Amino acid sequence: MTATLQGHNPRTGQPVGVPVPDSDASTIEKALVRAWDARRAVSSTSLEQRSAWLRGISAALSEHRQDLVELADSETGIGAGRLEMELERTCVQTELFVQVLADRGYLGVMIDHPDPDARPVARPDVRRVLQPLGPVAVWAASNFPFAFGVVGGDTISALAAGCPVLVKSHPSHPSLSVRLGQLVRDALEDAGAPQGAFDVLHGDEAGLTLIADARIRAGAFTGSLSGGRALLDKANARPDPIPFFGELGSNNPVFITSAAAIERKGEIAEGFVASLTLGSGQLCTKPGIVLVPKASGLSESIKKALPAELPVPLLNERIHTSYREGAKRLLEAAPPDGSVVPADLSDKPGFWTTPALAVVDSSVFRDQFAALSQECFGPFGLVVECASDDDLVDVARLFRGCLTGTIHAEETDRVLAARLMEELAERVGRIIWNGWPTGVAVTWAMQHGGPYPATTSSATTSVGATAINRFLRPVAYQSVPQFLLPEHLRDTSKAPRRVNGTVIAPS
Amino acid sequence: MTATLQGHNPRTGQPVGVPVPDSDASTIEKALVRAWDARRAVSSTSLEQRSAWLRGISAALSEHRQDLVELADSETGIGAGRLEMELERTCVQTELFVQVLADRGYLGVMIDHPDPDARPVARPDVRRVLQPLGPVAVWAASNFPFAFGVVGGDTISALAAGCPVLVKSHPSHPSLSVRLGQLVRDALEDAGAPQGAFDVLHGDEAGLTLIADARIRAGAFTGSLSGGRALLDKANARPDPIPFFGELGSNNPVFITSAAAIERKGEIAEGFVASLTLGSGQLCTKPGIVLVPKASGLSESIKKALPAELPVPLLNERIHTSYREGAKRLLEAAPPDGSVVPADLSDKPGFWTTPALAVVDSSVFRDQFAALSQECFGPFGLVVECASDDDLVDVARLFRGCLTGTIHAEETDRVLAARLMEELAERVGRIIWNGWPTGVAVTWAMQHGGPYPATTSSATTSVGATAINRFLRPVAYQSVPQFLLPEHLRDTSKAPRRVNGTVIAPS
Repeated sequence: MTATLQGHNPRTGQPVGVPVPDSDASTIEKALVRAWDARRAVSSTSLEQRSAWLRGISAALSEHRQDLVELADSETGIGAGRLEMELERTCVQTELFVQVLADRGYLGVMIDHPDPDARPVARPDVRRVLQPLGPVAVWAASNFPFAFGVVGGDTISALAAGCPVLVKSHPSHPSLSVRLGQLVRDALEDAGAPQGAFDVLHGDEAGLTLIADARIRAGAFTGSLSGGRALLDKANARPDPIPFFGELGSNNPVFITSAAAIERKGEIAEGFVASLTLGSGQLCTKPGIVLVPKASGLSESIKKALPAELPVPLLNERIHTSYREGAKRLLEAAPPDGSVVPADLSDKPGFWTTPALAVVDSSVFRDQFAALSQECFGPFGLVVECASDDDLVDVARLFRGCLTGTIHAEETDRVLAARLMEELAERVGRIIWNGWPTGVAVTWAMQHGGPYPATTSSATTSVGATAINRFLRPVAYQSVPQFLLPEHLRDTSKAPRRVNGTVIAPS
Repeated sequence: MTATLQGHNPRTGQPVGVPVPDSDASTIEKALVRAWDARRAVSSTSLEQRSAWLRGISAALSEHRQDLVELADSETGIGAGRLEMELERTCVQTELFVQVLADRGYLGVMIDHPDPDARPVARPDVRRVLQPLGPVAVWAASNFPFAFGVVGGDTISALAAGCPVLVKSHPSHPSLSVRLGQLVRDALEDAGAPQGAFDVLHGDEAGLTLIADARIRAGAFTGSLSGGRALLDKANARPDPIPFFGELGSNNPVFITSAAAIERKGEIAEGFVASLTLGSGQLCTKPGIVLVPKASGLSESIKKALPAELPVPLLNERIHTSYREGAKRLLEAAPPDGSVVPADLSDKPGFWTTPALAVVDSSVFRDQFAALSQECFGPFGLVVECASDDDLVDVARLFRGCLTGTIHAEETDRVLAARLMEELAERVGRIIWNGWPTGVAVTWAMQHGGPYPATTSSATTSVGATAINRFLRPVAYQSVPQFLLPEHLRDTSKAPRRVNGTVIAPS
């Protein structure tokens, strides 16, 4: 009997759509053969062709927006409004890579002409360009069915780089994954992409096969620390280890100075709660821990701002269970009078819960750091009360790698802010000033990554223009005649390049 | 009793200098504390200051050239001529990073201004810059006591990036390592670098401690496949895995087309032998395997060109033993009439040997690929006779990752050469046309890396300007006021940068 994936409506707990069979061994092998056989056809397409693929995908997503949002909502309970924004963001991110390809700077072209006078010996002509790695496996995430899903940033940046992509779908939204897979395959075919450039596989066996198969040259993953670490270990244990770009989990701490708490108490409390509960707290940049001045009364304001009365559906049964267990564990560390416990909704069908909060003293947080810094995926916030601004800096030193770190401070906090920045710059991929970490702008400069355990590769990002770098490696060509050089290394190329160390603007 | 390292003169087998004690646990811990405590002082120095450190190191090496070369020769037997060139190359590579710092492009500055009209929502100010990872451990190599040693490219590029460096010395030249360590520490101190920016440790315990210690944020290694893989596995098994940039070993195959063999038989045979035996064949880019047209008689010419009569000293006893064992194993696969066996020099003191060669048919090579593609470190070459140019392309498909791949072909070989290039571009980091892989130019465009097992990280290089990238990671600053931004992200910075996606030339 073939195992199947069955989506469920988080609002009712009822099945959605027909069961999707797990990909069997023969389907997985065929997809691998096709991806491998397609690798050179994919990598040798012109940047204009690849841009046409991306535009085709973006157009298909826009065209089917309404269906896709409805289907995604039925399997995720995220809500049509947020899903529409996410779909638009997914189109924007696809179009960003059209710009990246048109720019050509990502190719990192460097040309050094021969130098007969070089020390210690004459040097030959050396030219370097970044080339695609080959087939990439992408593990889709549960919480962003579009932006980090089948057709999310990992898939799009790998395709833009010139790599075939095999997606392992997330079991939480199988019908949407099938639909998106078909849409992308059709859009690629219409745009003239080679057969095998893209496919979607389902089920655990697919994931385990992909991470170990010699034809897969890199992996990209967004999900849990335990799942991501297990895949990372498998990638590293291969006879030929491959790069595995995993985004695993993050506390995203927020630091509030005394001055900021005095000046903007209500605004900060409301801003924090809005960021904490956005997308039912199921965002990788959710500010899970906020450090507040004890004397400020800010924890009380946060507690008051928390819309405890509003139940929200979580993505799936597993997350629902983990959320309640995680919240229970964290609440045990906190005095009950400061806490907000999740409502008991056990008689309500579906995966509903309510936002919750624990407030602990910084001394408790310090003593039980390993337990209290466990990510609780969902709308749970931990408020840590600090004795002083110095204590705030001390607590900052406890954190392991995070995607983001946020500071709320006033102009008068210059010295304190600089100290906090120094701690955060060592620990996070993005520092936010007087704002909130949720809402990751899809731009050239965005860094969505961070030291382990936030990600497995802190030098890379999964959002923004430089996400394409993950799927490339440099090859140098020494004394190779023009007619055999890759297009962008020839003298006739107008790609931006560095020649003998000097940057030449594109023309 | 403390273990010690004792250098030996490869020409005599006699001890050189005094024994160098292994670093004990307390010495290792002190060095780690100093490096960790120095990390912010090192990373926050200006690029001008760091350039002054590098210039100081280069000047010290030049000033002590004669001593250093003598000492290195006594422990390595490499010969004064080659060591002088290597020392000069080490200075050149140190000075290249002075240029890289002055250029500032390596910082990868990107600035996106706020955009109220961005889709799907307004976007904030986001600025990205690359920042140093923190303390780096460097494992020095045996075969380039300067260029890949205590003060080699790994050390220099990590220091240039703003990372403190702890070197684990190579046991083959302890006296030189101590001397270089002192020289670099003094040069850094004279140039005003913070205490703890650099140190050298000795012995296996130091290496094992460094790879596992939480204060070490990256490792760089040049050495054997087995040693490198063991360290890679340790780096990956940490609670917080760190990047480990290892260069492990490479066949560096050379492909000779029929047309080239006819046109330039003698020249190719001599060129191959010169490259094979350069540095007694102890170069990571040694062309270990050459694929020749069977009908051309090129293997006979290579055999004749091999200076079997000239004994050369190998670096140390271990390499000497491995060379003879490896050569024996490879020679067993070949018919004896085509082979050149190493001379029996068992009555000669020291680590002497002679170049050797095995000639096998491509069918044998194909059948016994795993055994015959084992790197034999030293002046051993494997000549593979191919039945046709098609066979040449087929054999190319056997190879795993290599540092280099070389093609000797004529203008008339356009189609064949393009097919070979296609195979090599997937497998190597540098493709050489009608030349030889030894002699790695230290330039902006150089790529010295390749897919596993050539290196552990094919997206990086250990030679050339982009070697600095290994020790950096991006951090994005969102809505951070000017006075708190890192220097190169401020509006007043003149560093080269990309603003709203457009490259702004430096000014």
